Amino acid sequence: MLHINSDSIEKMESRFRANLFNTISGFKSANLIGTTDGKGNTNLAIFNSVAHIGANPPYLGFILRPTTVERHTFENIKETGFYTFNHVHESFIQKAHQTSAKYKRQVSEFEACGFKEEYLHDFTAPYVKESKIKIGLKFEEEHLINANNTLLVVGKVLNAYLDEKFISADGSIDLTEAGTVAISGLYEYLKPVKLNKFGYAKP
Amino acid sequence: MLHINSDSIEKMESRFRANLFNTISGFKSANLIGTTDGKGNTNLAIFNSVAHIGANPPYLGFILRPTTVERHTFENIKETGFYTFNHVHESFIQKAHQTSAKYKRQVSEFEACGFKEEYLHDFTAPYVKESKIKIGLKFEEEHLINANNTLLVVGKVLNAYLDEKFISADGSIDLTEAGTVAISGLYEYLKPVKLNKFGYAKP
Repeated sequence: MLHINSDSIEKMESRFRANLFNTISGFKSANLIGTTDGKGNTNLAIFNSVAHIGANPPYLGFILRPTTVERHTFENIKETGFYTFNHVHESFIQKAHQTSAKYKRQVSEFEACGFKEEYLHDFTAPYVKESKIKIGLKFEEEHLINANNTLLVVGKVLNAYLDEKFISADGSIDLTEAGTVAISGLYEYLKPVKLNKFGYAKP
Repeated sequence: MLHINSDSIEKMESRFRANLFNTISGFKSANLIGTTDGKGNTNLAIFNSVAHIGANPPYLGFILRPTTVERHTFENIKETGFYTFNHVHESFIQKAHQTSAKYKRQVSEFEACGFKEEYLHDFTAPYVKESKIKIGLKFEEEHLINANNTLLVVGKVLNAYLDEKFISADGSIDLTEAGTVAISGLYEYLKPVKLNKFGYAKP
C-alpha cells in the first residue's frame, strides 16, 4: 500500500495533487446552480459539492472555491438572495460539464451550453427546464473557511419540483429512477446502481 | 410535476420529510470516521457528508448533525485532534451501515460491527483495516451553522494510504476500481458505473 504523507503531498505536481484530493473524498452530487444578477443576466454553473444540512426546516449547502468562475454564482446569490439547484441527468452530462468553462461575466451559460431557463411560481432565479428535480433556495448564511478562503454557502429550500413517481412511500427520492448522476473528482460522471437499502440500524 | 413549497414541507410527516430532504441533494460519499478518546476507547461511525475543501494543502470537511451518536466522533476529535476517513466498499456495506446504530459511549463500533482497528506510522487515531483507501486527518477548524446548530468540521490531510494501482496517470483515484460505494439518503448504498470522463472545459 502506498503511503502519502505531508512531504510527498508537497512535492506532487500541482494538477496531479488537485485530481488526487478532488477524488479522495468519495463520490459527489451533481447539480447545476442557476442564478440571475437581477438585471436580466443569468448564470449557470455545475457544482459537485451540494450537501444536506438539515430537513426541518430544509437547508442545503455548497462549497465555493475561491476562483473567478464560481464567484459569478456567488455574486448573483448575494445580489438577489435566491438561487436554484437542478439535478444533472445522464442525458445531458456533457452540456452540464461545459458550464464549468470560464465564460465571461456577460455570457449566460444557459444559452452558451444549450439549456432552457424556466421561471416557476414568481421565483426570480432561473430553473433548468431539462432537469427533472429542481430546488428553489433562499440564501441563509455563509461561512469562510479560514484554512484556504473557501466558502460554505447555506440556503433554505423554499420550493422543489419533481415528478411524484420518483418519491418512494417513505419519502426518499429514487435518484436512479430520475437518472441523476454522481461525480468523481472534477471530470468523471457516473451512473449509480442500487446495491441495497437498509433500515434504521439498532445496536 | 409536483410542486413542494414551504406550506407542504411544514405539513409533511417527519420521517417522510427527513427522507425527502436527505435524498434531494443528490448522491453522497460513504466514509467511516475512526477516532479514539485517548484513553483506549475507540469509535467508528459512518458519514455520508465528507466533502472536498481544498487540495493544496489538502483539506476535507464533513457535516455533523446535532445528534448524540455522531457527537461521540466529534468529542473524540476535539479531545485528541486526530481522526481517520476510511472508504466504504461494496463488500462491507451492511457492517458499515450498522455503525450508525446508537451504541453506548463505552462500546467500540469496531468490535460491535466487526471491523479491525489498524494503527499506522505513529498516527494515534485508528484506521479501518478492511478499507482500501484510508486518510489520516488533523482537526483544523469548525463552523457552527446557525440555522440549525449543525457543524462543519474541517481537517487537514496528513496521511493517505491506498494501492498505487487505483491512481490514474492524472492523479485521480479510480473509485470504481477500488469498489467504493455511494449513498443516497440515510439508508441506500449504490455502486457507481462510469459514464464518461471529460477534459478541462473551455468556452
